[in-house]
Amino acid sequence: MEWEDLARELSQQTDTKIVLLVMDGVGGLPADGQSELEAARKPNLDALAKSAVCGLADPVMMGITPGSGPAHLALFGYDPLKYQLGRGILEALGSGVEVGRNDLVARGNFATVRDGLVADRRAGRIPTEENVRICEYLNAHLPQREGVEVRVFPGKEHRFVARFTAEELADALSDADPQKEGKAPLPTTPLRADAAKASGIVNRFLDDVAEVLKGEAKANAALLRGFSKFPSIPTIRELFKLRPAAVANYPMYKGLARLLGMDVVEAGSETADLFDALERSWADHDFFYVHYKKTDSTGEDGKFAAKVAAIEALDPFIPRLLALKPDVLVVTSDHSTPSALKGHSWHPNPFMLISTTAGSDDVAAFTERACAKGMLGRFRSISAMPLMLAHALKLQKYGA
Amino acid sequence: MEWEDLARELSQQTDTKIVLLVMDGVGGLPADGQSELEAARKPNLDALAKSAVCGLADPVMMGITPGSGPAHLALFGYDPLKYQLGRGILEALGSGVEVGRNDLVARGNFATVRDGLVADRRAGRIPTEENVRICEYLNAHLPQREGVEVRVFPGKEHRFVARFTAEELADALSDADPQKEGKAPLPTTPLRADAAKASGIVNRFLDDVAEVLKGEAKANAALLRGFSKFPSIPTIRELFKLRPAAVANYPMYKGLARLLGMDVVEAGSETADLFDALERSWADHDFFYVHYKKTDSTGEDGKFAAKVAAIEALDPFIPRLLALKPDVLVVTSDHSTPSALKGHSWHPNPFMLISTTAGSDDVAAFTERACAKGMLGRFRSISAMPLMLAHALKLQKYGA
Repeated sequence: MEWEDLARELSQQTDTKIVLLVMDGVGGLPADGQSELEAARKPNLDALAKSAVCGLADPVMMGITPGSGPAHLALFGYDPLKYQLGRGILEALGSGVEVGRNDLVARGNFATVRDGLVADRRAGRIPTEENVRICEYLNAHLPQREGVEVRVFPGKEHRFVARFTAEELADALSDADPQKEGKAPLPTTPLRADAAKASGIVNRFLDDVAEVLKGEAKANAALLRGFSKFPSIPTIRELFKLRPAAVANYPMYKGLARLLGMDVVEAGSETADLFDALERSWADHDFFYVHYKKTDSTGEDGKFAAKVAAIEALDPFIPRLLALKPDVLVVTSDHSTPSALKGHSWHPNPFMLISTTAGSDDVAAFTERACAKGMLGRFRSISAMPLMLAHALKLQKYGA
Repeated sequence: MEWEDLARELSQQTDTKIVLLVMDGVGGLPADGQSELEAARKPNLDALAKSAVCGLADPVMMGITPGSGPAHLALFGYDPLKYQLGRGILEALGSGVEVGRNDLVARGNFATVRDGLVADRRAGRIPTEENVRICEYLNAHLPQREGVEVRVFPGKEHRFVARFTAEELADALSDADPQKEGKAPLPTTPLRADAAKASGIVNRFLDDVAEVLKGEAKANAALLRGFSKFPSIPTIRELFKLRPAAVANYPMYKGLARLLGMDVVEAGSETADLFDALERSWADHDFFYVHYKKTDSTGEDGKFAAKVAAIEALDPFIPRLLALKPDVLVVTSDHSTPSALKGHSWHPNPFMLISTTAGSDDVAAFTERACAKGMLGRFRSISAMPLMLAHALKLQKYGA
């Protein structure tokens, strides 16, 4: 009997409401003695910590740096070592591309090929409008092939998603991308015998694209990577009997949420938009995943001061969140993004849980070092969901 | 290699003695800023905490509220997700019904059947004395069937336990209970092929009961559910080479202990009786499970002050326990029972371990928040047994 079985057996629907506020990448490292969270002025978050039980959560296990996929899966109660999401599927879902059971998707770049070699892997970062035009042209002019439907969907600048629809496609395919400029475009190769059919379809598509776009000055070839199919994964409704809403304004997080069966509440790009959307969706759901991106993107850019500012920019919205009176509120992150490392890291996430069924510990600030002294101790992020459900009285007793 | 295999390989018998004092349900939640343990005056328990290493133990995993069965199994070193005890077996053991390897037991209700339909699933909640009379009558008048012995044991009001003794009985049987009134009584059906024999015996018993009780106004039929056999579980002697004694005065805990092969030392219902029994059994055993019930029952009743009083009532007996000079003493609980929640909960158990091989940390009180800062950190209760054995020098080295 594992957690997933326990969840199916013990979870029950109730009227209580849970908010999981993910400050993406918020955990950091000290510069001049203070981490980003320690340097930030954030009276509302610190007041929350005083009324919370706190701890540190390792997304996958100590020392493992996760991508956004596994880090979020763990927070949502899924074993990130059991369920693996292809990058292509995340990109596709994030771009609003519908993906069904017979679909194979991949992330694409338009590239410039000259004299048989990749001259620019990003086709000079063509403007997004160019990309839209090219994708429309491709969808209209790519030759029809028996038993296969192919569509391309424009992303930002040179990025797009390719979707192949056919019976019996497998996603065990190598990237069709030489990774470096000055090399020849690379066809995909099947990594398992059952991917031979898909490999043939993909490579014919790459040839077709080169033929159809041969008149383009910049975007005259396609590179594809992260081939993936829709994963077989139970929904949050199914596992936990929740009515989940995702409040996010970045495609990937919306895509991830959709994949787990959450209702995605569209939110504009301003921080206030997240809280507008949360309020709008309040009545019809009982689990709210709110995703705040700026703490991660500033960390990725290596900008300590900007990350501090991103933390400070969220802080004034905490009272609006509390005004909704959630029965359980968790503030944490999917993974850490120390600006000193300019990327995701393996450091555990500061974690606080506020609920009338939780009491409080002696932690007085929402920081890495303060949370390390909290009652929740150090635990894996996969325990976040059982904790939230328990404090919302949504889990029945195990055994007699 | 798992803990159970390690235990079999590494455990050794020695003269050292371990006491595990279970203050059932002692963990709680703050009311007016203090939990039950924080509000209680308990100088002896707090003095123990000063000489102990402390921590917080999750019975099954974070967020999971356990029944008494899984919570105790974990404390005794058994994986509570591997070994599951059927409700019928716990009910039987709890009622003091002896259960052997050839026995199949179930929880029963006397019910009223009228015109072929269940008119009252609880036979109008007949008084317990009525129940006793009916069980005696059934045991005397049920027809004898070749190769099977059946006995019924009265519980409170309409409840009873049925015990079937025969070779090759399996417990994969559906409940013989329509669950709703206005429906016909339901026979059991085998859920696996090997339960066909048991199914036949149970259904013949249900027919026999209806025939023998046809003259009764209210209790004229039986409903059965939670069929279970004595579980296949290794004994504490076998796994850990201990000579265990259980000092408890509530049937279920004695039953659970018997199931794990402990010698049950009968104790009266007063707190002093537990310590008399402990002293009496001291010479002949090396592992002592002492069960104190009042902290749980007062918590279940939602009585904060009474639970505080129950903690204070145990405290003066600690010196008697220490006078026995156990080599290892652990004071903890099986699960928490906050009076604010009037039931078992998922909150971790305060845990302290006293031994000359343990040293001490900076924890100065036996409370939830103080133990959270102890050297043992936050861990699963299944680690209690390896810790106790290790500090008693009963575990050999693993590997060279």
